[in-house]
Amino acid sequence: MKLTIERAALLKALGHVQSAVERRNTIPILSNVLLSAERGRLSFSATDLDMEIVDEAEARVEQAGQVTAPAHTLYEIVRKLPEGAEVTLAWTGEDPRLSVSAGRSRFSLPVLPAGDFPVMSSDGLSGRVAVDVNDLIRLIDRTRFAISTEETRYYLNGLYLHTVTEGGIPRLRAVATDGHRLALAEMPAPEGSVGAPGVIVPRKTIGEARRLLDDAGESVDLAVSPQKVRFDFGAAALTSKVIDGSFPDYARVIPRDNNRVMMVDNQLFARAVDRVATISAEKSRSVRMAIEPGRMTLTVRNMEAGQAVEELEVDYDGEAFELSFNARYLLDVTDQISAEQAEFRFGGPNDPALVLDPTDPDVRYVLMPLRV
Amino acid sequence: MKLTIERAALLKALGHVQSAVERRNTIPILSNVLLSAERGRLSFSATDLDMEIVDEAEARVEQAGQVTAPAHTLYEIVRKLPEGAEVTLAWTGEDPRLSVSAGRSRFSLPVLPAGDFPVMSSDGLSGRVAVDVNDLIRLIDRTRFAISTEETRYYLNGLYLHTVTEGGIPRLRAVATDGHRLALAEMPAPEGSVGAPGVIVPRKTIGEARRLLDDAGESVDLAVSPQKVRFDFGAAALTSKVIDGSFPDYARVIPRDNNRVMMVDNQLFARAVDRVATISAEKSRSVRMAIEPGRMTLTVRNMEAGQAVEELEVDYDGEAFELSFNARYLLDVTDQISAEQAEFRFGGPNDPALVLDPTDPDVRYVLMPLRV
Repeated sequence: MKLTIERAALLKALGHVQSAVERRNTIPILSNVLLSAERGRLSFSATDLDMEIVDEAEARVEQAGQVTAPAHTLYEIVRKLPEGAEVTLAWTGEDPRLSVSAGRSRFSLPVLPAGDFPVMSSDGLSGRVAVDVNDLIRLIDRTRFAISTEETRYYLNGLYLHTVTEGGIPRLRAVATDGHRLALAEMPAPEGSVGAPGVIVPRKTIGEARRLLDDAGESVDLAVSPQKVRFDFGAAALTSKVIDGSFPDYARVIPRDNNRVMMVDNQLFARAVDRVATISAEKSRSVRMAIEPGRMTLTVRNMEAGQAVEELEVDYDGEAFELSFNARYLLDVTDQISAEQAEFRFGGPNDPALVLDPTDPDVRYVLMPLRV
Repeated sequence: MKLTIERAALLKALGHVQSAVERRNTIPILSNVLLSAERGRLSFSATDLDMEIVDEAEARVEQAGQVTAPAHTLYEIVRKLPEGAEVTLAWTGEDPRLSVSAGRSRFSLPVLPAGDFPVMSSDGLSGRVAVDVNDLIRLIDRTRFAISTEETRYYLNGLYLHTVTEGGIPRLRAVATDGHRLALAEMPAPEGSVGAPGVIVPRKTIGEARRLLDDAGESVDLAVSPQKVRFDFGAAALTSKVIDGSFPDYARVIPRDNNRVMMVDNQLFARAVDRVATISAEKSRSVRMAIEPGRMTLTVRNMEAGQAVEELEVDYDGEAFELSFNARYLLDVTDQISAEQAEFRFGGPNDPALVLDPTDPDVRYVLMPLRV
């Protein structure tokens, strides 16, 4: 294998694939990136066995071939090379190492045979549908914060992507929940997506897909199977196992009949919650919310750290009631609301509350109150 | 105690003093800031028993008095209050807590009696000398990176500030060393400083002083005693114990007769060192430097990670030789050099090397080569 490639192109492709590689690996070849040179281009592949990212770049290939080399080290070297450098990669077989040279810099990196590199099969992936990049970014950004990190409930450790039909209109929907809060965002179902199996896309995959979306064009192709999901960005592509489990029947927890509707200035509310939370206990971060016509009072009492009270004007004219929430969960939701006002729909003090963005009918948030 | 103060003034003063407060304290009152209100101003004091920072701000004092309250919590609350807020602090004795209120925000914080708050004496501090702020910033910035973090050699855990007279000219000099490298920066001795005792100012004190210098005017007053140092910034002041030990006779390790002079482009050199260090072993980070007329070759060999070679043009016409350095230490020094070229003066391959900044005769760096 021998080729020359522009540093910028090499850096971009390595940047795309290298973050699939875990920092520590018990299987040595998983630290490596597979480099495949053929006819005018260099292809890249990296995997952690659950996820594979591939990309390619134009290159002047003198001699085709394949080899694997340490992904993070190669990325770091290329990142540190001067802008505009032309990088030559060579693995001749005479030297057992990959030579990386540019200007007066020469590196030799240990390699492992390309034949040993695990390749993820695309078997069963079907029904490629084109999804608008901005819509997909919105679906991910509005919901990923609610993905559970609790490993015992592994089926909540991902974003549930699926289609639903409501009122005869098919929708592509993303839902995340950790049992304490739920985030839902949806968009018109892309052509051909109806009937595809719902998949729980792991947290790491969502993070990598989101990163790759920043460099994507106007649309990405999505393909799913009961075992896998594939995001096709053009040159780059991400294939990942999905979580083998059933996502809970989340529709049950989305309140439909909450009729205590309260509107509050989203920024003023978020800042007030943040201030009172300063003295909340680390663990529960409990904030008491007392709502009465025209006014909300936020209170935190902490035996050690003291007491905090904030008052806010709200648009509410029902009967007075009180309930408590985790401050962090409230702030995660206010962070997502782009409207000036946040709309809260409460049931009883122990019922889940629905939070809406008046300017975006395609998102819904549910918060479980704390029992105090 | 009762007073009203502008949020910005309160935030600035609390910001100055609160970082003296350690995150965890076995003595509860050390988590607190002492607030003293009298005639039109509020004074602040915080300490970790080794260092004390005080500041003051204008306030409308309705009732004079003193109390202590949790420093970090108070700072966080004030930071989160809206810009332009007027903050009322009240401790009436009826409520055992400090009331902090602004607009529709009300906080009650636990207090401890002002009488129990430790105050650092200024006994023996004498010979206040005025030092130009920019000169003092330069003295600190050019040298602090070389302060040792090894606790067994406690007398190296600070910056040695002292006056020397060389060629009849008195200089104020800062020296830091960890035994592997040394940094020295000096300036004309301020009036009145000659004869003051040399002091080893602890790392944390240097960090706090440097932070306060950013908000200082044109000059600060420095006072020293054999036990203490005091930086007077105007309203804010920092008093600190100094390290009770003897700074080693550093002049011995500064080479005087190194006559292999090499000039190299500082930026190109730094980038080349950074690149080859990518594959150096974590611990020694050893970079081999081979110098011959007109050329330097940097080499790193690492059994696991491979090999890296960089060539650089240098201005050198002596005989060829080789030696090794810790890459991190080389980069710490190149970071300090503002000239286009760095000047290296080498002795033998096991002798300390002197590094100079051709545009700044007031700094000197010494690097011990690694034995390989």
